[in-house]
Amino acid sequence: MLSTRSPILAKTAYRAVGGVKPLAYQLPTARISVVLCQYHGATLNQPLQVRSFSFTSKAPLQTTQSLQISPTNPNQRETKQSWPHPIYNEKQMADIEIAHRKARNFSDRIAINAVRFLRGMFDIATGYKHDPKIASGEKSPKEETQFAMTEKKWMVRFIFLESIAGVPGFVAGTLRHLKSIRSLRRDNGWIETLLEEGYNERMHLLTFLKLHQPGLFMRLMIIGAQGVFYNAFFLSYLLSPRTCHRFVGYLEEEAVITYTRAISDIDAGKLPGFENMKAPQIAVDYWKMNPGASIRDMLLYIRADEAKHREVNHTLANLDGDMDPNPFMTEYEDPSKPHPSKGIAHLKNTGWSRDEALSK
Amino acid sequence: MLSTRSPILAKTAYRAVGGVKPLAYQLPTARISVVLCQYHGATLNQPLQVRSFSFTSKAPLQTTQSLQISPTNPNQRETKQSWPHPIYNEKQMADIEIAHRKARNFSDRIAINAVRFLRGMFDIATGYKHDPKIASGEKSPKEETQFAMTEKKWMVRFIFLESIAGVPGFVAGTLRHLKSIRSLRRDNGWIETLLEEGYNERMHLLTFLKLHQPGLFMRLMIIGAQGVFYNAFFLSYLLSPRTCHRFVGYLEEEAVITYTRAISDIDAGKLPGFENMKAPQIAVDYWKMNPGASIRDMLLYIRADEAKHREVNHTLANLDGDMDPNPFMTEYEDPSKPHPSKGIAHLKNTGWSRDEALSK
Repeated sequence: MLSTRSPILAKTAYRAVGGVKPLAYQLPTARISVVLCQYHGATLNQPLQVRSFSFTSKAPLQTTQSLQISPTNPNQRETKQSWPHPIYNEKQMADIEIAHRKARNFSDRIAINAVRFLRGMFDIATGYKHDPKIASGEKSPKEETQFAMTEKKWMVRFIFLESIAGVPGFVAGTLRHLKSIRSLRRDNGWIETLLEEGYNERMHLLTFLKLHQPGLFMRLMIIGAQGVFYNAFFLSYLLSPRTCHRFVGYLEEEAVITYTRAISDIDAGKLPGFENMKAPQIAVDYWKMNPGASIRDMLLYIRADEAKHREVNHTLANLDGDMDPNPFMTEYEDPSKPHPSKGIAHLKNTGWSRDEALSK
Repeated sequence: MLSTRSPILAKTAYRAVGGVKPLAYQLPTARISVVLCQYHGATLNQPLQVRSFSFTSKAPLQTTQSLQISPTNPNQRETKQSWPHPIYNEKQMADIEIAHRKARNFSDRIAINAVRFLRGMFDIATGYKHDPKIASGEKSPKEETQFAMTEKKWMVRFIFLESIAGVPGFVAGTLRHLKSIRSLRRDNGWIETLLEEGYNERMHLLTFLKLHQPGLFMRLMIIGAQGVFYNAFFLSYLLSPRTCHRFVGYLEEEAVITYTRAISDIDAGKLPGFENMKAPQIAVDYWKMNPGASIRDMLLYIRADEAKHREVNHTLANLDGDMDPNPFMTEYEDPSKPHPSKGIAHLKNTGWSRDEALSK
């Protein structure tokens, strides 16, 4: 009955099933077929209804069809990855630990307080609470018992977290690019690392979206949060790039705490819904994981990525952005010595000092 | 006498010789030595003076020391290239031609008129004029005789052009990234191509800066132009990405005309200053040119790059940005057929139609 070739009608049809579009391209006819398959998939056993206002959708937690590539459509396409992910080994990922770099100056204190403020707001928004002793590293998340989180609460938190985490890298990369071309100076290799950080955070987000689709209320919160955060970070980076990198460093300290706690919740058997769930294909491809890797394996990779961003941004905050080369894009004369690098082989939780970063 | 290790003092010293910083990192002591070498290099035969207000610096047109990496400093660093340049062969580059895609709808007409307006302003700013018949392709730039351009006028024009050309790719890439993470949808591979375009334009700029350093007046114009253009393009891309890609397509049509005319000026012997000038090392490395390549060789590469951006943006303007994959990042089923690709082997001057771009 929906026999149309018009893209407009096809799009309208999408909106009717929740505004979700397939990831890859389909011809109009194929689009319709996917719309119908989504329609059936979503509402086979209940009448079509408007998505209810809630933090999370009412659908059971499972790989969401809306972001799947249906093998029935020959015209769908995969595009190349912008930045292949560096290889992490299991021991490196298991060794990731919660860490905190003490604030040493006024700029650091502005950064840490901004993070604490945002974290407070964010915890309220996503119904999350945890012991401050864990943030300070005095207490292991494993001991945490109160404020138990459900699988859905974790997913909502991850998705909100990653939708924000993708912003700073692109803002910083763009502003350094613009500065380079307007001040007629070289950038010294910072831009790519910053863009890659944003890309990596976006991959985290797309991965979680394969596992869970947030409800309309959460979607609106994400849009609103980006509008505020993008502009605030843009202006802040114009004023003090150093403070902004420190801010991201502290933000990533929190991210490592969050993922460490999620992993220990799984280990403590608090999240049975995650135990039998497999990492989606997009994650297996991106991190080059073994097929059939678990959600726990995936969270280990993601936590390691966040720990890497923590190191990178604390390090960049220690450098002179106008004069110093990006140590993570530099080839060092003495490879036998540990140096800043792309992977996590020589991860420095609180960042490299300027002298270390600029040594041979 | 300038025996200081203080980076602040070192920076001040830089400002004293025109606010130019070396490209790669040096230790404070090394910095001072470079400052002094720049000082001598710049003012050996005349007293130190404030740079005069003019479109171009008074220094003779030659590879500028200020952007050179002095081999005397062991601590200077090169950082890796973000995007290695695809290989072009000589025939492909020689075959690049002036082309114009006729405006077909209202959006196209807005784009072409915006380009014509900017081009008019720009010609006045850089003291450039040429026959409109050339823009329309009715007349070859080789026949152009009036309004002769000097080497310096060309350099100023190139530098201004490239300082603007680096903006759209990063604006579009960032806005697609932000849209992806706020609308919880995949990007379908557009972002990297857009960022790479901005990076490529910035490499053009850095290359020209090795050959010529504009004066203070030109620097101020570049800063002002970026401030206006970045914000205008950002808002326009929010309103209509399609119109913005078409706009860039038309802008690149103009760039191809400009470089074609510069090359034919060299061939016509109008620019003796370029004839014995070698392409700087940064260009040889980036485009993998033979050492000792000439400025003309370099301009052939740059013109080919602009022709590529012309194809890419006219093509993207033909697509549905929400639904279609980036054809320049897609692997096609039938490689024997010409398809959109990274290089210029199957360059389509006026862009690929949507059906062509989405075929197998």
